[in-house]
Amino acid sequence: MNDAAIELLYDYVAAIDEDRLEDWLDFFAEDAVYQIVPRENVEQSLPASLMLCTNKDMLRDRIVALRSANKFNLHYPRHVVSAPRVRPIGADRCGLTASYAVFQTNMDGESRLFSVGQYRDEIRFVDGKPLFQKKLVVVDSFNVPSMLAVPI
Amino acid sequence: MNDAAIELLYDYVAAIDEDRLEDWLDFFAEDAVYQIVPRENVEQSLPASLMLCTNKDMLRDRIVALRSANKFNLHYPRHVVSAPRVRPIGADRCGLTASYAVFQTNMDGESRLFSVGQYRDEIRFVDGKPLFQKKLVVVDSFNVPSMLAVPI
Amino acid sequence: MNDAAIELLYDYVAAIDEDRLEDWLDFFAEDAVYQIVPRENVEQSLPASLMLCTNKDMLRDRIVALRSANKFNLHYPRHVVSAPRVRPIGADRCGLTASYAVFQTNMDGESRLFSVGQYRDEIRFVDGKPLFQKKLVVVDSFNVPSMLAVPI
Repeated sequence: MNDAAIELLYDYVAAIDEDRLEDWLDFFAEDAVYQIVPRENVEQSLPASLMLCTNKDMLRDRIVALRSANKFNLHYPRHVVSAPRVRPIGADRCGLTASYAVFQTNMDGESRLFSVGQYRDEIRFVDGKPLFQKKLVVVDSFNVPSMLAVPI
Repeated sequence: MNDAAIELLYDYVAAIDEDRLEDWLDFFAEDAVYQIVPRENVEQSLPASLMLCTNKDMLRDRIVALRSANKFNLHYPRHVVSAPRVRPIGADRCGLTASYAVFQTNMDGESRLFSVGQYRDEIRFVDGKPLFQKKLVVVDSFNVPSMLAVPI
Repeated sequence: MNDAAIELLYDYVAAIDEDRLEDWLDFFAEDAVYQIVPRENVEQSLPASLMLCTNKDMLRDRIVALRSANKFNLHYPRHVVSAPRVRPIGADRCGLTASYAVFQTNMDGESRLFSVGQYRDEIRFVDGKPLFQKKLVVVDSFNVPSMLAVPI
């Protein structure tokens, strides 16, 4: 279960980095929650999210919008993940935490730090296949222009 | 032994990142040595440290001082660790090396690279529980304002 | 096989970070291909490389040249690797992918992001020992002064 959960995370970041966002959708359960929250809000238990999708159709809409809108300001993302850790929640569920740093490179080949933070995920196994039931991205960096164009 | 040593390292960085510095103390043996040394000095076998604590009471003092003094210039740290490797030293001891990058985010949500370097640790198992006997932090980056406010 | 392949990658980056480039050569097969390609070129199937060595003698030449030429503009590299993944190719071969970020620190102790990208390697086991048969470094960041002084 641990290895499969970590592989799911690696698949997730690879799909974003390689711009396979339609594949990326496949890693979520239909009733999945995807949420990006500034660290400050999490620590003060404030509800405001930078992004909140409460089912997979909302994620689908988002990718469709990205594909039609995101023709300018192109960049390549690159994720570095650290210290993935899995804890069992039940027979078919586990929690996964991992820290991340995302770098972005523009079309001139210049790279910069884009976002650091932590994944705090819940993964459910359906017929042996792991899916994100909840993906909570706690972002340290919230002061980023056009931050939410692409999933983190 | 390998997995437990790596988990100890992950616990260590999580405690710093989450500002649980009192928990962080629990990862050290009473006679632990904690040392931060610039890479240049290590390679030239120069003795000067940026920080040297030769027992756990010195670390406790440091945390107490931090808690009373560090009311301004707040920031969130975030560790990314890479390539953790364990080698046995004896029946109850092992060495652990890992590279790290630490990012800091200020209260405006702006993140920056803070420090890169390598951990070169010695871990002792006491009643099956791993503790840092020696934590040597070799910092590439030594030209950082207020570097030593928080442990690396 | 998986663990040995990942250890080879960790040995590889450690040798670069610790300036043991002569040891670094030992990780390659005699007929190894070492290639650095901008991500843009890979995605458009363009052939242009930033660096291409098609056997180990070319790598040896490179290290000799580095040792005699690189007396100025010194810096320390530091690799952070992420999400190493191994897939079998045959009885004695496997593929390895991993993302990386490389930081550089100058002699004033100032660190900066140097390059991000991905390794896409082929590893062959000779008498049980893993060697790089092909090392393809896909660099997101290609707009870097003096990029190719040191291997990535």
